[in-house]
Amino acid sequence: MNNTGSILFCVQCGTPVRQEEKFGRLRPVCPACGWIYFTDPKVAVAVVVLEGDRVLLTRRMNPPFQGYWSLPAGFMDAGEDPQAAARRECLEETGLEIQIIRFLKVITGREHEHGADLILVYEGKAHGGILQAGDDADQAGFFSLNSLPPLAFSSTQSMIDTAINRNPGYK
Amino acid sequence: MNNTGSILFCVQCGTPVRQEEKFGRLRPVCPACGWIYFTDPKVAVAVVVLEGDRVLLTRRMNPPFQGYWSLPAGFMDAGEDPQAAARRECLEETGLEIQIIRFLKVITGREHEHGADLILVYEGKAHGGILQAGDDADQAGFFSLNSLPPLAFSSTQSMIDTAINRNPGYK
Repeated sequence: MNNTGSILFCVQCGTPVRQEEKFGRLRPVCPACGWIYFTDPKVAVAVVVLEGDRVLLTRRMNPPFQGYWSLPAGFMDAGEDPQAAARRECLEETGLEIQIIRFLKVITGREHEHGADLILVYEGKAHGGILQAGDDADQAGFFSLNSLPPLAFSSTQSMIDTAINRNPGYK
Repeated sequence: MNNTGSILFCVQCGTPVRQEEKFGRLRPVCPACGWIYFTDPKVAVAVVVLEGDRVLLTRRMNPPFQGYWSLPAGFMDAGEDPQAAARRECLEETGLEIQIIRFLKVITGREHEHGADLILVYEGKAHGGILQAGDDADQAGFFSLNSLPPLAFSSTQSMIDTAINRNPGYK
């Protein structure tokens, strides 16, 4: 969902922009109205939902890593509450309604070109809904922690491990 | 530094955009090339630097809250490492070189219109440089935790409290 690679025109007045040194780096600047383009980080939210010795995963319908499994996750918009975004993504991708139990950690650095710069990871607990893949997931389900399907990202295992470490019963 | 309020033209081809329902909400979309404008969150980093019973603060040179004090902080760009951004902001605003000791927490929700949607808060330790205000700070200094100057944001005190709670010697 990040298609901001080519900033050629001003969003405010349509004038072709120029590259100028602004706030410490070259940025697209409008010579007509002064608009400056700042590359804000892409921020995603992800949620680890444990149930017994199983974790909720979704299978990616789209590239990259199509057919591989990951946690319910997605980009958050400006002004959106990240916990609400995590609940929304989980509902869209798995059909399950969750409550957020705790913030687990923040992961920094893109794992792939179209990934997020930051991922806010929460732990959630399912309390309603019907398990049904949707949005950009073509399958969703709970998997035993001892036999996970092929994971899309190395961060997925790291997020699950963090959740397990915060739940004494799993240690 | 957030001036993306008026998205009227496509950044890729300069065509006037239309508001269309995309990915769950109305977004500016280019009818010519298909570019979609996503409002990414503004992300800031802040750093709590403790030294004895004092904390490093900077005085804001610009509105809002001009003349009030806050922690060394600033926006991070896409692709920038947040710890590097925190070190950079501290150096620019206080002249001090720091190392990052730990991630403290993430603060969500804008405290004012031009603020960040997310603030990643780190604890740092000064190890070099010369105390000298710079960038958008007109004063910088260490203040006793028992007599802080007027703070710009309620989150500032919350960030300091979190750092103190992570340092057993201060409890």
